Amino acid sequence: MEGKTEVGPFQLMSAITTTAVLIGANVGGKANYMAIAWCAPCGHTPPSFMFAANKTHHTNKGIIENRSFSINIPSVDQVKLLDWCGLNSGAEVDKSALCNNFYGVTHTAPMMPICPVCVECSLIEHHDMNAHTVFMGKVEKVYANPDILVQGPHGPAIDTQKLHANMFSFSGPSYMGLLAPHAVPWSVGAEFDPKDAAPARRSNEFPRIDTALCVGCGNCVGSCPKSLYSLNAEGKSVFDMENISQCTHCHHCIEGCPVNAISLSHD
Amino acid sequence: MEGKTEVGPFQLMSAITTTAVLIGANVGGKANYMAIAWCAPCGHTPPSFMFAANKTHHTNKGIIENRSFSINIPSVDQVKLLDWCGLNSGAEVDKSALCNNFYGVTHTAPMMPICPVCVECSLIEHHDMNAHTVFMGKVEKVYANPDILVQGPHGPAIDTQKLHANMFSFSGPSYMGLLAPHAVPWSVGAEFDPKDAAPARRSNEFPRIDTALCVGCGNCVGSCPKSLYSLNAEGKSVFDMENISQCTHCHHCIEGCPVNAISLSHD
Repeated sequence: MEGKTEVGPFQLMSAITTTAVLIGANVGGKANYMAIAWCAPCGHTPPSFMFAANKTHHTNKGIIENRSFSINIPSVDQVKLLDWCGLNSGAEVDKSALCNNFYGVTHTAPMMPICPVCVECSLIEHHDMNAHTVFMGKVEKVYANPDILVQGPHGPAIDTQKLHANMFSFSGPSYMGLLAPHAVPWSVGAEFDPKDAAPARRSNEFPRIDTALCVGCGNCVGSCPKSLYSLNAEGKSVFDMENISQCTHCHHCIEGCPVNAISLSHD
Repeated sequence: MEGKTEVGPFQLMSAITTTAVLIGANVGGKANYMAIAWCAPCGHTPPSFMFAANKTHHTNKGIIENRSFSINIPSVDQVKLLDWCGLNSGAEVDKSALCNNFYGVTHTAPMMPICPVCVECSLIEHHDMNAHTVFMGKVEKVYANPDILVQGPHGPAIDTQKLHANMFSFSGPSYMGLLAPHAVPWSVGAEFDPKDAAPARRSNEFPRIDTALCVGCGNCVGSCPKSLYSLNAEGKSVFDMENISQCTHCHHCIEGCPVNAISLSHD
């Protein structure tokens, strides 16, 4: 395909970003947790959840034995705990001693109360995917810290921004947080006109800096979530055009400039 | 569990955030695309991908008929296109006319070249999940725009930050972008000491502002990705303590303050 580079099937994994969680299960009667990133909901009636785990994982045995598992979601400030659980196998390290595990209606899915969200699931089925097993579970109960809840139309609801979980990608690899919402699903699409379908405009919108106006306050440097601004030797704002594809079009730079020295141009 | 609020099983869907994609298939010989958020990789040998689709979707028929589908990933500036494909069914609207669809080795999985990443998959299997069907596919080929690639150890690799896809959550609901990486998987966990396992510290680290030093430059206002700063009537920096749980601990405020008026406190 003209304009596209073929990059090999493994690159799918750098294109898809998912929430990194700790899956818990009792293995030989002892609580264990594994770090898992390949996960998503898989149904709403009843609420269900799927994840893929390498077959080498110690935790898998306990899920199949007890037909239950838990989902524990660490926040970004618990990234070391999350990653440590991924680096160390329960076959060698006792993860049951990390904190006071608690159990709910399944009685066999250990949960980590230090995580802001804990979910217990009963196993529906599991599928062989060669090196991985895909587990699918029915969500039984969800427990959340009060400080990540907002009042929703049907009672308290988890706020994704307040939860502030670790998103995982093989690109890097890296753990990332989430930016503030930029659009509302089942709504923003009403503004789309099919006649206007256009390629991603990664490079044809860029900030233009009027150096005669720039006072060198550095607001643009501080406000850019991708660190694309710097001040040059004359103390004037400079935008990193080489990395323009990282620009999120958040317009914080434009909004934050006290002298309106930054505007948008199109090539 | 003490300290936790039970919020009901549907809330799992606000706790898990996933990349929103357009799944393509030929239906009755015509290209069609549906917006899907519940997706993740599900294996690496071979690279595989799973997603859950409500059974009412028009596209599902084509996937099963041709045993192939595509994954097309719009960037944040294509969010209206993405959402429009979710709002409108291919049973009523001709989505084949959005752009010049292209086909690869499967010959039956239409791809949308305007999206920065297009992936073709052959169907491995599909599973009945009550209201939803889970599809699992083998990744055949991945095509990407050159401007979202970086040189990796094994050739060109997709950069998640440059791709800048739309992350979806039922919280809101909302589409969100990704913050810059804050940690490296399979690495940062080496810094963790199991004795230090601690609850998410959402509220015990907060910025303290020395108003005697503050010069009211507004750098903190511009640099906070969660807009937690403002200037008060005296032109001094004020932190929104009521929404401290949104603080991402990025420390942009501290680093950006030209007079070191912001420091961290713990309660």
